[in-house]
Amino acid sequence: MYEATPQKQQQQRQRQQPKKILVVSAHPEPQSLNATLTTVAVEHLRAAGHEVRVSDLYAMKWKAGLDADDYLDHAPDRRLKVLTAAGQATLAGRLSPDIAAEQEKLLWSDAVILQFPMWWFSVPAILKGWMDRVFTNEFCDGSTVPPPYSEGALGGRRALVSVTLGARESSFSDRGIHGPLSDVLFPLQHGLFWFTGMSPLEPFAVYGCNELPEERYEEAKQAYIRRLDGLFTDEPVPFRTLTGGDYGRDLRLLPGVEEPGSGGLQLHVRPAG
Amino acid sequence: MYEATPQKQQQQRQRQQPKKILVVSAHPEPQSLNATLTTVAVEHLRAAGHEVRVSDLYAMKWKAGLDADDYLDHAPDRRLKVLTAAGQATLAGRLSPDIAAEQEKLLWSDAVILQFPMWWFSVPAILKGWMDRVFTNEFCDGSTVPPPYSEGALGGRRALVSVTLGARESSFSDRGIHGPLSDVLFPLQHGLFWFTGMSPLEPFAVYGCNELPEERYEEAKQAYIRRLDGLFTDEPVPFRTLTGGDYGRDLRLLPGVEEPGSGGLQLHVRPAG
Repeated sequence: MYEATPQKQQQQRQRQQPKKILVVSAHPEPQSLNATLTTVAVEHLRAAGHEVRVSDLYAMKWKAGLDADDYLDHAPDRRLKVLTAAGQATLAGRLSPDIAAEQEKLLWSDAVILQFPMWWFSVPAILKGWMDRVFTNEFCDGSTVPPPYSEGALGGRRALVSVTLGARESSFSDRGIHGPLSDVLFPLQHGLFWFTGMSPLEPFAVYGCNELPEERYEEAKQAYIRRLDGLFTDEPVPFRTLTGGDYGRDLRLLPGVEEPGSGGLQLHVRPAG
Repeated sequence: MYEATPQKQQQQRQRQQPKKILVVSAHPEPQSLNATLTTVAVEHLRAAGHEVRVSDLYAMKWKAGLDADDYLDHAPDRRLKVLTAAGQATLAGRLSPDIAAEQEKLLWSDAVILQFPMWWFSVPAILKGWMDRVFTNEFCDGSTVPPPYSEGALGGRRALVSVTLGARESSFSDRGIHGPLSDVLFPLQHGLFWFTGMSPLEPFAVYGCNELPEERYEEAKQAYIRRLDGLFTDEPVPFRTLTGGDYGRDLRLLPGVEEPGSGGLQLHVRPAG
């Protein structure tokens, strides 16, 4: 008798419920491991019945620097107050067309994947510029609800970081010299994704990429495919919520809610069990 | 009898030993608080007898996105391996002139100040592009010594972050929802500055900047001037060193060297006393 493996069952479930995925990719070299992983995601997710769109930021010649030109009605002689100008342009539908197009893709999506090499312990500038310019005030937050803006435009969407790193895994481990990967990516995972109401998954990381032999490419691809299969079924990182009663009105974690001995940025993750 | 205040004594010491300071500023609006703080730094440090140079990234139309054009001898039909290409171009003196100019300023400097607004819990894209493109392999690290590259090109230079934030201070405090400011800036303070052999000071931060009344501008300026007066005398953040015996060969902190109960990214700071 044929018994489907858990992986097959999962793929079948996904096939039954087609989803929409936006892949944002940020590497200048079309033959890089990052480009390869983007292709893997596109092909694998499409084969599973999903719709996929790609924002290949280098190919798009994405403008990285936020400035007054992003807000079409901003008078050149007026002082630019970024938060105000971005909010007004968003509400008026007067954002630069490249920004509006990315917002439309985000609204269309059920999940967002960011594919990038770790450069200086963060995203490449071109991807930071995508974050700076696209996630405008009044787009990704709700004016009337506290963060995370689960009721906002992006609420509930899944978010997956797929990152390549030159360093060894041990140096990004719990006691590693660069800090745990979850802490280094906290500004992205919690600061961008959680804050805007999205549900970030554990990051997918490939280490030791500076001199990666071919056989590890294949290994990395297979490991990534396993993560892609869980894109809509894996448990998101259980960040605490503001409505859960863990924070005071000053946005500080209330005393005593954490496990004894815990500290650092992981305070903001709910303890297991 | 006239007795000089400690502040005056410090200023006098600084006047006796003129230093060279590079201010890197990243805000699109010439009338912003960031631009104001840059002007304060330039005027105050020059009045104290120092030499100051400014890289106003928006005014310079700094190119944010690292790509193959950064490395003058890179053949367009060859696959770009960033680390290798950057290292070769650095050693051969064949970096793009805009990158070479910034490297020259860094080498000239005794201290570097980064002035920026916190956007999505990190530096603006244009400043990230300065980091990505200027801090090349073979420029800021030593090939033969472990990090931090105190023996490298940037060893010993002081580094000060001056950052403006829209949020309240409590939300970036020890238990604040965004994480402690020192943890959010760890990729910059430890990842960039410490790693390249520089000596990062505690960041200077102005909170609540979205609706900052004029009287708080003056307050912020005065607070900043006090920090500028300590640029060469304040104690740097005491990050642990690799040569200090705290780390194993896998670049993980050895068991038991931390204070009981400490954790997170602050593991990498030496306990006081």
